[in-house]
Amino acid sequence: MWRDLLPIGQDADSRGYRRYAWTGADADCRAWFRGQAEARGLTYEVDRNGNQWAWLGDPAAGDAVVTGSHLDSVPDGGAFDGPLGVVSSFAALDELRGRGVEFTRPLAITNFGDEEGARFGLACVGSRLAAGQLTVEKAHELKDADGISLPQAMERAGYDPEAIGADDERLARIGAFVELHVEQGRALDLSGDPVGVASAIWPHGRWRFDFRGEANHAGTTRLEDRRDPMLTYAQTVLAAREYAARHGALATFGKVGVEPNGVNAIPSLVRGWLDSRAADQETLDAVVGGIERAAAERGRTDGVDVHVTRESFTPVVEFAHDLRDRLAKTLGGVPVLPTGAGHDAGILSAAVPTAMLFVRNPTGVSHSPAEHAAEDDCVAGVRALADVLEGLACN
Amino acid sequence: MWRDLLPIGQDADSRGYRRYAWTGADADCRAWFRGQAEARGLTYEVDRNGNQWAWLGDPAAGDAVVTGSHLDSVPDGGAFDGPLGVVSSFAALDELRGRGVEFTRPLAITNFGDEEGARFGLACVGSRLAAGQLTVEKAHELKDADGISLPQAMERAGYDPEAIGADDERLARIGAFVELHVEQGRALDLSGDPVGVASAIWPHGRWRFDFRGEANHAGTTRLEDRRDPMLTYAQTVLAAREYAARHGALATFGKVGVEPNGVNAIPSLVRGWLDSRAADQETLDAVVGGIERAAAERGRTDGVDVHVTRESFTPVVEFAHDLRDRLAKTLGGVPVLPTGAGHDAGILSAAVPTAMLFVRNPTGVSHSPAEHAAEDDCVAGVRALADVLEGLACN
Repeated sequence: MWRDLLPIGQDADSRGYRRYAWTGADADCRAWFRGQAEARGLTYEVDRNGNQWAWLGDPAAGDAVVTGSHLDSVPDGGAFDGPLGVVSSFAALDELRGRGVEFTRPLAITNFGDEEGARFGLACVGSRLAAGQLTVEKAHELKDADGISLPQAMERAGYDPEAIGADDERLARIGAFVELHVEQGRALDLSGDPVGVASAIWPHGRWRFDFRGEANHAGTTRLEDRRDPMLTYAQTVLAAREYAARHGALATFGKVGVEPNGVNAIPSLVRGWLDSRAADQETLDAVVGGIERAAAERGRTDGVDVHVTRESFTPVVEFAHDLRDRLAKTLGGVPVLPTGAGHDAGILSAAVPTAMLFVRNPTGVSHSPAEHAAEDDCVAGVRALADVLEGLACN
Repeated sequence: MWRDLLPIGQDADSRGYRRYAWTGADADCRAWFRGQAEARGLTYEVDRNGNQWAWLGDPAAGDAVVTGSHLDSVPDGGAFDGPLGVVSSFAALDELRGRGVEFTRPLAITNFGDEEGARFGLACVGSRLAAGQLTVEKAHELKDADGISLPQAMERAGYDPEAIGADDERLARIGAFVELHVEQGRALDLSGDPVGVASAIWPHGRWRFDFRGEANHAGTTRLEDRRDPMLTYAQTVLAAREYAARHGALATFGKVGVEPNGVNAIPSLVRGWLDSRAADQETLDAVVGGIERAAAERGRTDGVDVHVTRESFTPVVEFAHDLRDRLAKTLGGVPVLPTGAGHDAGILSAAVPTAMLFVRNPTGVSHSPAEHAAEDDCVAGVRALADVLEGLACN
C-alpha cells in the first residue's frame, strides 16, 4: 500500500514531494485513497470541500470514530508528513480486522484536502471550510503563484467550487477524531519513545511583509539616492531570529518574492512571509510585534514602506482532555507533548473531540526530503492507533 | 518612429518593459528596427550573433562610422535605456540628410542583441560574442529561469546558434563606434547640461552567492537545530551595503532565488546575486572580498555553506582618448564623466575606437518604469549625435 503511494509527485532531482492541491499529483494521491477504500469494501465518498472519506458502517448513524490525515505536501516535502497518518489508518483497520474485533460505532478514514497550503498560501483549507473557519468568499479569493484561483483549480480538477463551505451536518456525525502524524521535532527522540500523544498546538500564523522601495539601476544609482527594500527585508529577517530566540519562540522567513528580481536592478518590492509560533498568545504577540517594529524602524532609514498583512492565524489549540487522557491510558503512559505545527486536527478540535498521536522522528527533520521515521516506529504507530480505535469504536 | 516602438513589450500592470532576448517582444523590436532601416533605404543585415545593422554606403569599404545601442530591457525597465540610442541614431541620420551633408565614410546604425542579460544572466551577449569576449561553448551553456538554453531560444526565434562566435571581420570594418545612452545617474542633472561625453566605465561584475543549509519545518524545528540559509543571506545583504559605503563603491543584491520557498519551510538553498562596481579594480576587490568574508563568517555561525561564483566581469574601460576629446570639442566643452553601467560600447572598446554620449536624466532613475528624459534633452541628444557623426563621417 505504502509502495504504491511513494512515487506520486516525487521530484526526480530533489527526491522531495510536490503534491499540491488540485494538481495531477494530488489527483493521483486521491485515486490511491479511493483504491485503498474500495479494496477494503469501505463506502467511499468525497464531501463538498474535496475531503475524502472511507466508511465502515453507516455514515449517517452518528457518533462515528474518524481517523486520517492528509496526502498533499509542502514544496519538496518528505514522504511521511500527512501520508503516514492516512496509511497508518488503513493499516490499523487491517490490524483490527485481523484481531477479529466487533465495531460498535461507525469508523471512517479521511484524507483532508490542501492541508499544507503550499499552492494557495493558506493551510488546512479542506478542514477549515468544513468547520466554517474559512468563508466561501475568502476561499474564492485565494490564488496560486500563477494567478489561478482556487475555484479555477477545483474546476479543472473536476470539483464544484460553488458547493464548498461549512459542513455542520457531516461534522455532527463525528464522535471523535484521531490524527496520527510523524513528529516534527525531536521530543520523542530525546525521551526515547516511539509514540506520543499531543497535548496542544501552539498558536501560530503567517504574516506577509511588503517592503516597497523604488526600482533603479544597481550600477549607477548612488547609495544615498536609493530606496532599496532588500536592505529592510534583510534587517527584518535577522530581527525575526533575534526576537524568537529572546522569547523561546519560533519565527522564520522561508518564502520571498522580489520585483523585478533582476541582477542589476534595485528592487521595487520585496515580499517576505513570516511564519511565527509560540507556546502562548502573549509570547507570540511580543515576537511578531517586535519584528514589525524592527521592520518599520529600518524602513524609515531605507526610505522603504513596510506593510504587514496577517494572512492566517490559528489560536492555541488544547486537545480534548478526556480523549487525550483516555488515549494516554490506553497506550500505557506514553509522553504527552505540545507541537508547533498546525494540523487538520487542530482545526476540527473546535467542533469535534479531537486527539493526535505522534510517531518518533529520529532527526526531527520535516518538510524536507530527509524527513524520516524508522519502520519499527511506524509499526508501533499503527499498533497504537489500532489500540486507540479499538478502545473507542469497539466497546 | 518612437511611438511605434513604445507599446512593444510593455507590461499592462507595471507599465515597465519586458523585452527579453529571443522572446516575442524582442522579435517585435527587431521587426521595428528592420522597418526603420528599410524605410530609409538602408542596407539591412543581421550578423551571425543576432546583432542588427542598417548600412548607408558600402559595408565592406571599411573605416565605417557606427552608432546605435540596444532595444532589449531589464525586467520592468524604462522606455529609454537602450531604445533612446537606437531611435536617436535614426533621427540623427534624418537630421544629417536634412542638412544635406555628404558622407565620405560608410555609416551604420546597429541594435546589439541581449544587452541587459535579463534572460540568461549575462549582459552584452551580442557584443561579447562578436568581440570574442564570450566563447561559443560558454554561450551554449547559458540557460534562462525555465531551463531553456540560449541555443534553444535562438533556434525558436529562427536564428542559428551554431553560427555564433567572434566576428573579427565585421569589427575590422568599423573605424569608430559612438553609442548614445540616457544617463543612469544624476551627474548631468547636477551640472545642468543636457548632454555629456563618457570618460570611462567602472569595472563591474556579477557574483552568485549560494547559501546551502537544510530544509526543515518552520513550526517545529528548534532554533538551535536549524541550518537556515536565509539568515546568512540577510547578513550578507547588509554587509554588501556596509562595504560599498565604506569604499565609495556600489554593491547590490537585486535578485534572489529560494528553495523550496514555502512559508512554513526553512529553506535548503538561498541564492543571491551580487552586482558590484567601483571606480578602480583595487576598490572593487576590497568590496567583493569583504562581502565574501562576511558571508563565510556568518555561514559558519548558521551552519550554512557559502559558495561564490563570479558569473561575469568587465574590467575598467577607458574610452579612446582621441575620439573622446574630438567629441567633446565638437560639442563645445560638454562635461566628460564616468559611469558605473556596462554598455556594448564598453565591450567594443577593446577592439574598436569607441565613445559614448549621455543624455540628461532628471531623476537619475533607470531600470524602472519611472526612467525619464525630457523631450528637449532628447532633441539635444539627437543634434549632438548628428554633429558628432557629421564630424566623423562627412570630412
